[in-house]
Amino acid sequence: MSAIRTITVELGERSYPIVIGTGLLGSGFDLATHVAGRDCLIVTNETVAPLYLDAVTANLAGKTVESICLPDGEAFKTLATVESVLDRLVSSGANRDATIVALGGGVVGDIAGFAAACYMRGIDFIQVPTTLLAQVDSSVGGKTGVNHPGGKNLIGAFHQPRFVLIDIDTLRRLPDRELKAGLAEVIKYGAIADAEFFSWLEENITALITRDVETLARAIMRSCEIKAAIVGLDEREAGRRAILNYGHTFGHAIERCQGYGDWLHGEAVAAGMVMAAELSPLADKDVARLRDLIGTAGLPTSPPAIAAKDLFAAMGLDKKVRQKQLRFVLLAELGNAFVTAEYDELRLMRILGAGER
Amino acid sequence: MSAIRTITVELGERSYPIVIGTGLLGSGFDLATHVAGRDCLIVTNETVAPLYLDAVTANLAGKTVESICLPDGEAFKTLATVESVLDRLVSSGANRDATIVALGGGVVGDIAGFAAACYMRGIDFIQVPTTLLAQVDSSVGGKTGVNHPGGKNLIGAFHQPRFVLIDIDTLRRLPDRELKAGLAEVIKYGAIADAEFFSWLEENITALITRDVETLARAIMRSCEIKAAIVGLDEREAGRRAILNYGHTFGHAIERCQGYGDWLHGEAVAAGMVMAAELSPLADKDVARLRDLIGTAGLPTSPPAIAAKDLFAAMGLDKKVRQKQLRFVLLAELGNAFVTAEYDELRLMRILGAGER
Repeated sequence: MSAIRTITVELGERSYPIVIGTGLLGSGFDLATHVAGRDCLIVTNETVAPLYLDAVTANLAGKTVESICLPDGEAFKTLATVESVLDRLVSSGANRDATIVALGGGVVGDIAGFAAACYMRGIDFIQVPTTLLAQVDSSVGGKTGVNHPGGKNLIGAFHQPRFVLIDIDTLRRLPDRELKAGLAEVIKYGAIADAEFFSWLEENITALITRDVETLARAIMRSCEIKAAIVGLDEREAGRRAILNYGHTFGHAIERCQGYGDWLHGEAVAAGMVMAAELSPLADKDVARLRDLIGTAGLPTSPPAIAAKDLFAAMGLDKKVRQKQLRFVLLAELGNAFVTAEYDELRLMRILGAGER
Repeated sequence: MSAIRTITVELGERSYPIVIGTGLLGSGFDLATHVAGRDCLIVTNETVAPLYLDAVTANLAGKTVESICLPDGEAFKTLATVESVLDRLVSSGANRDATIVALGGGVVGDIAGFAAACYMRGIDFIQVPTTLLAQVDSSVGGKTGVNHPGGKNLIGAFHQPRFVLIDIDTLRRLPDRELKAGLAEVIKYGAIADAEFFSWLEENITALITRDVETLARAIMRSCEIKAAIVGLDEREAGRRAILNYGHTFGHAIERCQGYGDWLHGEAVAAGMVMAAELSPLADKDVARLRDLIGTAGLPTSPPAIAAKDLFAAMGLDKKVRQKQLRFVLLAELGNAFVTAEYDELRLMRILGAGER
């Protein structure tokens, strides 16, 4: 894929482009023209900085560029880390026209985006995601935030980026396990919104795992299109956007029980998607198709060894709980998700107990 | 004033009413009907709680009400205090339908509003301001946030309340000095937007200082009307809203040089308004009218003893700085403010030096 493709997230005056291509980092794309002010702070981490920090600095030629390098990992997705970014903005005298550039995976984007949301009540930020998960999910849609000891992503803001720059070349250096974790979210888009895309993924899963660039480009494009459309309909998750959380109620419960950092987020979501399919009014053969695709992608299809009661308790503080009533995103068919508070409790307990056996 | 009066802040789907009257706290107004969910957390402080916490709890009859009592004072307007509110929300299992009720002055409102903005990426909040300053200024318009050691209000969010409930009876127990500090913002509205209101204030300043209820009600009504109109035009301070900062560039510099907590915010703004008038292309007699009104209100009309260079440096991190160029809100005439980067530097230095003499 030599062409640069652009998708627009349509949000009125907060609309922004997602630019997808290869060879974009470095001198391949003039990111500076998309920066309103003069000062840029690149927020990255110790793993990503050696790979791309110089390149992205080159994309910002003509701007005053500083950078802050965070420790790598979900464990550092805390308010304290956000504070360190804010401290840096203050000490560098950044004003309202400053722009934060998030260079890295989902954790970096969530932290940097929340810092941008809070500094002087909101400054611009640009997402330069370097993992598949961030490229197809977290860099698009404006959800930013950090974890609280009591739950994941409990502290945050909706703050849309001004620009998302996706260079597919960055996936070459992504560890296998993280690539697969990103595929979990790609599969999710097919499952919740596009049966044709789901079938395409079944046919192309091997090409994706072996990192065929053109196939990855198509998968990322379609994932971003679906996410952009859903976010455009319901920016602040008042309704329809909740279907993007398919598999996440179970997935977050798994992560919480593990104390985070055992399974990757995408792995927990993968198992969670199979569990949610089992709770859905879905034909057995479609549950099997989802399970098979997830399995072929090298992702877990059932929860780890956790007691059902622990998983159930871990769902208690989930953000998808309204009026303390659990609501689930389920599938009516492949490509068609819905949100409901009606579900078979007995079946739920049986599904939650899968890891006990 | 027995009547309840309502002003609407027009912000599309984020529109909300400001209800102003007497006898509203306690059983006088059914606040519960304006709360969407079940759980309420009242955020208040140690000074206000003994006076009104029981009353406001009564306004919320039928809801599950908890409260958190913060230490009193600007010194506690920090991210750490916001974190304590967030911790409480988490530990009480608050969900997305929870509502925060801010009961107190501007500091309580700013902290509680920012906590509401950040918890689960934004929950409802209601302002119940108990100081004149909060009633006419900080409770309306959605500016929330906390201070950073490097500057005031550097960390925050725009997050509009769902409702503002102003019970004028609360002013009976407000210390004299705080009442006067609130009058500074009332005078500001006349100065920036309504010459007729300014004249009315000149005639009624004594009645305001002696707390005549009907006069206070009219002053609060008109102040809220002006603020609501300006916020409705420019919610996120992209332009016109900046005139609400009249006197604040100087005022914040005074506060910063004092380390906060010496002069009240309203006192610093009062002196700042006179300083800004002196920098404005304003007839001498109008500068004199503003100085006289502020003086009659018992507020300072010149800066405290601070070196000009210190005040100037303290302006460097002001939020109204764009591209590192100082912009001022000045008066073309009484009732007519404008924002400009053009000003007489020599005159500015002379004005900043007033406290040295």
